Amino acid sequence: MSSPSSSSTPSPYPAPHPTNSLLLAYQVRTRTILLAGGGPVAASRLYHLLCARPKKLVLFAPDNEDIDDEFRWRVEGESEDAKKGREGIEIEWRKQEFDPTQNKEDLALLDGDEIDMVLTAIPNPTLSTKICRLCRARRIPVNVADVPPECDFYFGSVLRRGSLGVMVSTQGKGPRVAARIRRKLERAIPENAGEAIENVGQLRKGLREIEKGTGKEAIERRMGWMIRVSDKWSLAQLGEMDERMRNEVLAGWEKDEARGYWDVNRGKYGGLGWLASFASRLGVGTCPVVKDPDGSAAKCPFVMGSTGFVLGAATAGAVAAFWMRRQ
Amino acid sequence: MSSPSSSSTPSPYPAPHPTNSLLLAYQVRTRTILLAGGGPVAASRLYHLLCARPKKLVLFAPDNEDIDDEFRWRVEGESEDAKKGREGIEIEWRKQEFDPTQNKEDLALLDGDEIDMVLTAIPNPTLSTKICRLCRARRIPVNVADVPPECDFYFGSVLRRGSLGVMVSTQGKGPRVAARIRRKLERAIPENAGEAIENVGQLRKGLREIEKGTGKEAIERRMGWMIRVSDKWSLAQLGEMDERMRNEVLAGWEKDEARGYWDVNRGKYGGLGWLASFASRLGVGTCPVVKDPDGSAAKCPFVMGSTGFVLGAATAGAVAAFWMRRQ
Repeated sequence: MSSPSSSSTPSPYPAPHPTNSLLLAYQVRTRTILLAGGGPVAASRLYHLLCARPKKLVLFAPDNEDIDDEFRWRVEGESEDAKKGREGIEIEWRKQEFDPTQNKEDLALLDGDEIDMVLTAIPNPTLSTKICRLCRARRIPVNVADVPPECDFYFGSVLRRGSLGVMVSTQGKGPRVAARIRRKLERAIPENAGEAIENVGQLRKGLREIEKGTGKEAIERRMGWMIRVSDKWSLAQLGEMDERMRNEVLAGWEKDEARGYWDVNRGKYGGLGWLASFASRLGVGTCPVVKDPDGSAAKCPFVMGSTGFVLGAATAGAVAAFWMRRQ
Repeated sequence: MSSPSSSSTPSPYPAPHPTNSLLLAYQVRTRTILLAGGGPVAASRLYHLLCARPKKLVLFAPDNEDIDDEFRWRVEGESEDAKKGREGIEIEWRKQEFDPTQNKEDLALLDGDEIDMVLTAIPNPTLSTKICRLCRARRIPVNVADVPPECDFYFGSVLRRGSLGVMVSTQGKGPRVAARIRRKLERAIPENAGEAIENVGQLRKGLREIEKGTGKEAIERRMGWMIRVSDKWSLAQLGEMDERMRNEVLAGWEKDEARGYWDVNRGKYGGLGWLASFASRLGVGTCPVVKDPDGSAAKCPFVMGSTGFVLGAATAGAVAAFWMRRQ
């Protein structure tokens, strides 16, 4: 029914990228997850699960020499770090194989209401396939490690910085390329990006305590000020924002002033911070070509090239002057 | 039970980052998803869903002036682009409100086996809450737009390049910071990264046709060669790898040669590509400080700074020479 001209009209909206999967941050705080297996792959799954902080983990793995060291440490380690990693998560390690095809208790677990998700990482493909079928028949999302057709979800390559999570997914087409992209992103995201997110949240909270209005105007004024402030801070600087800095920034609200990092850190560098504050107002320190609040002059090809040029010219000039004097 | 010394022992494994959610690429190719609402938020959800390519979408929205233009275009648009966007996805638009509390047919839909996931983006919070409860009672994952406690999953800020998907999630703590990080990542990932993934897949497939061995040694030799080859190509170059280039790269397998982009493009630039090939063997073109196959000299502060220095010195030298001649 489409008219011949319609195909030549440019599309008014972006075309969907057929990624073939829905990228989600799945909430599991009230969920119970079953993990079968105790080897290195199970240990890596367990790490992901501990980050996600479910209500409960039911682990199935016979307690023998095949248990991965990391797996055991995360489940049973007595050090502060190991305990902190599983804090607030109920962990039940059933020291046997998970086999709902043989063991009625295991099947009852799938039939009951408790299990919300099943992950298997066991060296038994036949059993895995059977577990997958049983889960699917019960609409329990399932992931069989290394067998894409038996996965209702993939994990992708994940980068974590505190409460920031970045997942790189290639639909299983290029795990190595995914990891390469993840490493590239690791260099692009500052170490303290997780704190930056927390600190922006704290600032927003602090602002709401000063300006409590719930009307449209108050909301818009708050939002506008938040945008102006946060655009003045790089991500790394936001990550450094402590209570003192936050209070000084909030003190700018009444005057409708958006204070940047250097405006509240003038005392730094033996009192020379005001110089940095002045420089940052002029836009020195970030790249004048790509106006990125997170860009630094050291990463700007224009700044580095022209600085090099000036230094080179000065050096050559000095050499020439020195040489001419000697003549 | 932990001994006093154990807390001072450094942790042997990375501590979990409490992101409080499981980042997943959820597979929906065989799933049916229900979306309630037809406004701008629903349109944005619809875009995500079309990218994910579910088996079927059941849309609920009264067909009136509140329907967002993009929503209507994606569902009913007759242009090639609009049709291509929904190709292979069964779309059923029920032109009425979704109200399982009043309408028995709607409730039957939730009670039945068809619906695997429910998304609402409707301007009725009370109804949304009721829909959420009905879904949870039936273990159907649900997302109520803008109401985090009523979401079993969040969407995060997503960057797409063909089959590559990158999700930035901040647990709803900082949607603006998430979008800022996503824009930063957009600059870090080449436009054709999606093709790069496809092309690496094609190369791997081509290799398996030449070397069919399934033994451990054959697998390891194949994997080693694939790693050596792909590390010689930047992501952007991998994205350009067409059939001719692929065949020339594969021709290097017999000689155990890992051919880079310039090795198979010597004819470029009027036959001067061999110069680029030679230069890339010397490591020119990428940053000598950060040895990143995806880094370019133009982004390397060291290369730009020193190039600027040399050019500056040369310019000053030329000026001095010219000036001295005139004396």
